[in-house]
Amino acid sequence: MNAARALRHADLDVTLIDRTNHHLFQPLLYQVATAALAPSDIAVPIRWILRHQKNVTVFLGDVVAVAVDARVVSLDQDHRSIAYDYLIVATGSRQSYFRHPAWESIAPGLKTLEDAAHIRRQFLLAFEEAERSDDPTVRATLMTFVVAGGGPTGVELCGVLPDIARNALYRDFRRIDTRQTRVILIEGSSRVLGAFPEQLSAHAHHDLEQLGVEIRLNALVTNVTPDAVHIGEECIPTRTVIWAAGNAASPIAKSLGVQLDSVGRVIVNADLSINGHPEVFVIGDLAYLVENGRELPGVAQVAMQGGRAVARNVICTIRGQPRQPFHYVNKGELATIGRNKAVADIGPLKVGGRLAWWLWLFIHITYLMGFRNRVSVLIQWAYAYFTYQRGVRLIIGTERRTRSPDSTSVDIADAH
Amino acid sequence: MNAARALRHADLDVTLIDRTNHHLFQPLLYQVATAALAPSDIAVPIRWILRHQKNVTVFLGDVVAVAVDARVVSLDQDHRSIAYDYLIVATGSRQSYFRHPAWESIAPGLKTLEDAAHIRRQFLLAFEEAERSDDPTVRATLMTFVVAGGGPTGVELCGVLPDIARNALYRDFRRIDTRQTRVILIEGSSRVLGAFPEQLSAHAHHDLEQLGVEIRLNALVTNVTPDAVHIGEECIPTRTVIWAAGNAASPIAKSLGVQLDSVGRVIVNADLSINGHPEVFVIGDLAYLVENGRELPGVAQVAMQGGRAVARNVICTIRGQPRQPFHYVNKGELATIGRNKAVADIGPLKVGGRLAWWLWLFIHITYLMGFRNRVSVLIQWAYAYFTYQRGVRLIIGTERRTRSPDSTSVDIADAH
Repeated sequence: MNAARALRHADLDVTLIDRTNHHLFQPLLYQVATAALAPSDIAVPIRWILRHQKNVTVFLGDVVAVAVDARVVSLDQDHRSIAYDYLIVATGSRQSYFRHPAWESIAPGLKTLEDAAHIRRQFLLAFEEAERSDDPTVRATLMTFVVAGGGPTGVELCGVLPDIARNALYRDFRRIDTRQTRVILIEGSSRVLGAFPEQLSAHAHHDLEQLGVEIRLNALVTNVTPDAVHIGEECIPTRTVIWAAGNAASPIAKSLGVQLDSVGRVIVNADLSINGHPEVFVIGDLAYLVENGRELPGVAQVAMQGGRAVARNVICTIRGQPRQPFHYVNKGELATIGRNKAVADIGPLKVGGRLAWWLWLFIHITYLMGFRNRVSVLIQWAYAYFTYQRGVRLIIGTERRTRSPDSTSVDIADAH
Repeated sequence: MNAARALRHADLDVTLIDRTNHHLFQPLLYQVATAALAPSDIAVPIRWILRHQKNVTVFLGDVVAVAVDARVVSLDQDHRSIAYDYLIVATGSRQSYFRHPAWESIAPGLKTLEDAAHIRRQFLLAFEEAERSDDPTVRATLMTFVVAGGGPTGVELCGVLPDIARNALYRDFRRIDTRQTRVILIEGSSRVLGAFPEQLSAHAHHDLEQLGVEIRLNALVTNVTPDAVHIGEECIPTRTVIWAAGNAASPIAKSLGVQLDSVGRVIVNADLSINGHPEVFVIGDLAYLVENGRELPGVAQVAMQGGRAVARNVICTIRGQPRQPFHYVNKGELATIGRNKAVADIGPLKVGGRLAWWLWLFIHITYLMGFRNRVSVLIQWAYAYFTYQRGVRLIIGTERRTRSPDSTSVDIADAH
């Protein structure tokens, strides 16, 4: 999106291909998963955003392979191929289950609107089933929620769930006391929010404990079954596990024919192009680049700045000017933990609490795309803040497409 | 819902069972299907509505059979049975495909939020595919939308689609002209909105033609395939057919063991109870009753008034007082055709046009449940009215559960 927009004054034909029709504001996805926002509040049609940019054509499609020598990308639908002069690959990452693909169908990740709707459905259904059940053990199992992974997504989810159980739901049930809900956060390392300074990790840890979240540090998930999560010898009975523990690169990376790192990301040059093919760029979560001795993190800022940088480099190349190496400017990081609770790491400013929370709120509303969404989100937040209710407690649909992680590999092999 | 609320002061244990967790404001469902409103705008959790009514317990569950002699209803999940002293059956109707069940997977109806999301997805995808296609015939097929059934739902859908194609979408596409979209309404009888006075039918017909809708009266669908709709000898190539042509009673009716009418509705007594079982009532679309020589129509007003009437009769029976026969008071009917276009039939008032449209707007906002929804819907309507845009153009999910119309019949047989 940022690359396409940065090319708006260039005399080029830009084709933007995405497997969804919408641009998703990922930082608020956990709020859709927890019934605070509707999917349409954080997603805007891509072609609507670009409607005035006449040099862009948008295709809804799933790119299954790139043939870098033939300079062609292949779409899944219609078996269509699209030729290119320059290619920008920004297919990102998805949940990694650390060689346990079977866990995926039990413990959903949180990357797409479908994921968010699935998690929303699952946690709301858990309370419905508990209300129907007469067995105290089954009820306790249903009312135990486990989140694997103590990064921003995991912390945000854990911060919201106790609030919902204690405030939004407890008057609505007759046979269960939703305030007995347990929320357990499992983190493999020694602290939550590992990317933040230690003092802010401690702040977030304290905030989560105050909310009643049980935090297990240095804990590794050894098995996930439909009825339990195992941490070594320990077994936690639960029907709801949310996976926020790791990322794996999009499988498109393999078809580029260049070196990948251990998690499948493309090792790129300083200008974000790939070796031997200066016309192919990889940006965002899919790219691996070390700058000033630090690996670029897989966050939105890097992806957005990368998009604008490669657009500039495409224009430079066409004009016969030299390319510029990519330089990442970290504007700071924020994570929210719950009502009035957040941490902010912005240059010299390292704060937790109410100020950080207001900063978080302001920045997220500012970055949210489309005026209508901003108004809608503000209203829903005000509603949730003052009433302690959740506006979007809908259980819709009954099935979920299970993604087969390797479904694209055959097509990729064919394309070579 | 109305029966449960009317029992709020009674010293009774009320159990409300529904297969969804939400109460749906059906009259605005077509706006979800056409991307104007989000599902959460017109649906509110049932247990949230009843949170302060302590004598009600809400269960999410699918009632698959009623054993009237044993006084027990059976749920699908958990194979749980619930005993009753009084039973109110309000399971409504669903789409009827007139003995062509195969059409259901091609031509979705519009009864549930899932249906609405499916239709939204299908019509948005049609434009996406047309943009990808190079074949003018395929494009024309994709950009032809057929609505079967000229009742309020069919008319409302047909009134919205040309507006979307002409205003909301046309700047967003580069390779197709969305203004060439064809919308075809097929109606079996000699006029649209058959339940309204003839002058208002004519008004609606004129309005639809002004919007560019092609209306086929006295036309019967003889076949539906993935690529076309057949009307006798004529074949209309299309990929999107929406079915608003007929209703069939919920299959629960069969398990009551009493006489049904030709479309499977339960023939009820004047107090809405069934023959031989004065403790069992049937209300809403599932009941067949003739009052003053006129069959009660399958509309929300009848269902709501019926719910309150049976609640009063339950209380009368417990107190040893005689029951009152049900009397339906028709408050009038409204249907909207599009921007500033509607018809109203309210007592002596029979009007079309702008006044009817404002009436429609006012009444629907008034009846919409929950303050938050009203504000949200008002904002989205104002947004759509002034910008001609659609706020909820999301394509989410890729599969749809196909309902097997007879999946419950075995369980019902078992229950006897």
